[in-house]
Amino acid sequence: MIEITRPTLVVDKKKCLQNIEKMANKAADFKLRFRPHFKTHQSAKIGEWYREYGVNAITVSSVQMAEYFAGHGWDDITIAFSLNIREIKNINRLAEKIKLQLLVENTEAAEVLAEKIKYPVEVWIKIDTGYNRTGIISSNSYYIESVVNKITQSSKLTFKGFLTHTGHTYYASSTDEIFSRHFDALLKLRSLKQQYRFKFPDVEISMGDTPAASIATSFDGVDEIRPGNFVFYDLMQHSLGVCRLTDIAVKVVCPVVAKHLLRNEVIIHGGAVHFSKDEIINIDGKAMYGRIIIHKGEEKVMLDQMNYLSKLSQEHGTLKVAHNQFHNFEIGDLVEIVPVHSCLTANLMGHMRATDGELIEMMPKY
Amino acid sequence: MIEITRPTLVVDKKKCLQNIEKMANKAADFKLRFRPHFKTHQSAKIGEWYREYGVNAITVSSVQMAEYFAGHGWDDITIAFSLNIREIKNINRLAEKIKLQLLVENTEAAEVLAEKIKYPVEVWIKIDTGYNRTGIISSNSYYIESVVNKITQSSKLTFKGFLTHTGHTYYASSTDEIFSRHFDALLKLRSLKQQYRFKFPDVEISMGDTPAASIATSFDGVDEIRPGNFVFYDLMQHSLGVCRLTDIAVKVVCPVVAKHLLRNEVIIHGGAVHFSKDEIINIDGKAMYGRIIIHKGEEKVMLDQMNYLSKLSQEHGTLKVAHNQFHNFEIGDLVEIVPVHSCLTANLMGHMRATDGELIEMMPKY
Repeated sequence: MIEITRPTLVVDKKKCLQNIEKMANKAADFKLRFRPHFKTHQSAKIGEWYREYGVNAITVSSVQMAEYFAGHGWDDITIAFSLNIREIKNINRLAEKIKLQLLVENTEAAEVLAEKIKYPVEVWIKIDTGYNRTGIISSNSYYIESVVNKITQSSKLTFKGFLTHTGHTYYASSTDEIFSRHFDALLKLRSLKQQYRFKFPDVEISMGDTPAASIATSFDGVDEIRPGNFVFYDLMQHSLGVCRLTDIAVKVVCPVVAKHLLRNEVIIHGGAVHFSKDEIINIDGKAMYGRIIIHKGEEKVMLDQMNYLSKLSQEHGTLKVAHNQFHNFEIGDLVEIVPVHSCLTANLMGHMRATDGELIEMMPKY
Repeated sequence: MIEITRPTLVVDKKKCLQNIEKMANKAADFKLRFRPHFKTHQSAKIGEWYREYGVNAITVSSVQMAEYFAGHGWDDITIAFSLNIREIKNINRLAEKIKLQLLVENTEAAEVLAEKIKYPVEVWIKIDTGYNRTGIISSNSYYIESVVNKITQSSKLTFKGFLTHTGHTYYASSTDEIFSRHFDALLKLRSLKQQYRFKFPDVEISMGDTPAASIATSFDGVDEIRPGNFVFYDLMQHSLGVCRLTDIAVKVVCPVVAKHLLRNEVIIHGGAVHFSKDEIINIDGKAMYGRIIIHKGEEKVMLDQMNYLSKLSQEHGTLKVAHNQFHNFEIGDLVEIVPVHSCLTANLMGHMRATDGELIEMMPKY
């Protein structure tokens, strides 16, 4: 291992491979196309890890990310973000080279796309199944039909089907609620599939979220899943009951720089520019930004929930440490922090290290 | 101007220069050394903008950032982060080349530093004046004395004085509270200066925060100020009453991708990976992540506070838009978002554009 001197995101390849294998097997069992979302890791090297599990089609969250992965040998990419018509030039450049799938959710964008696209692309209609972020409400048949009509006006565009991101599973307060939201979304999409099957026999439905993809036990009628976070998992997924703590494949290793015994706090180098400000609520009702793993001799021990990353400023992190654990922290020690939201943490860090110290590069910021 | 197709951080150089000039003049008026914090912009090019106002000494928040700016011609740098003893190798490399100032707040770090430093450096003792993040509580004379003793054991180390970051001014609920916290900190540091003046005639005190540096009207006894955020300012500083909206020098330009009339929401490409999740509370009691500027013909108009960036996921932003403004948003439009916390936004974006389109590079992430 390299010598760690400053906050470093370390990824456990073995755990990632286990997570990928498990999800790939699940997709195979349910006869689903597995099109993992690569926004979680944004890394060409980690992308290669999926290959041995038969993955050859991926999902990304921006045109820029599609360009990055297309440049690293991926030739079947869905940009799972509603079409930004300002990027049509770059989209045409991509569509010339690879099999590209786009999302459309309004007639304005569909019209511009139909008019300006120069190469064949497949188009999903983005459906809002209850997350209420964006997409067409599934019951809005009239508007869905208008968008389908715009798409089919162009010989370059193939209407692929209906896609949703059931992002409200991230805010579920129990696994039952994840199931409820998943099945509700599933029924909505399946109903659309039924309506359009006569006119478009190949119409498909695609679902996306890691919580449901991890624990749901039926995907009847679904053609494709696009989870992303599962490759790393994180405390948020653990708190949802979707993964075990031992499945989490990323940690931020941080040096201890100060101790404040009177208020039971330990200061680490590791702040908002490393973790992001995404939080979960801890058992004490306070915001938590990470759990703590310490070294005891050769052993690594995860401390209980009364010890946690409790505050973040730009570069500083504050660990709330129970009185009986305080002696385990010394100035200059390294602690490992399990992050709340691995996607945002990886995005902030800009690169990672494998457990053997190997550098894992990520998509550059421009 | 270049064609903007995706979320782009645009910096108004003219406003930055005005902000720098104003702060430089204020420092001169009060006979303070002006050592601006460069963590806000992390950019060699923007760093050059300070030169014409006589700035030749700077503050940074990490050893890595010191290395970056030392590589761009800055030879007098304070690393305003309590010494991380694991970085001693890089610190020695820096100290060989430039005039370096470090912060120490415990005997453990002071001891390692005294033992391992190979070149002359100046050392500040980091004092906690009420922010309660880190540093030695100012009244803890016994411990302060122990740290000073450790420092003076090495002929390479010069004890410089007492430094604080009055970060609790960021959480003030009125400008009076900013004054109160500033003067309280000032009195604490001045008392320490008095105590040590006999033994160390050149002992100095250094203060840091943008809110007090912007509005305080006395710095009696202070030798140096280290504000950073003021170069850009942001909504948080505006909400504190520290700057005008027109002083804010950065905006994130974002394309509109969807409209949801039924819930008065507009979706932009621009999310947590562009803005950070730092929020302020809006007049409606809800979290706000940015204010909105739209184009009306040639004119730019900032909408009132009932129109704002109200939700963020990884790449999506949701604008809450008043019913009577809804018609001003069209798919494909660009809107400008004034960010809540410019430091974290710049850090996330990784690069900026000047208003004339010129690329402004920032410190690489590794």
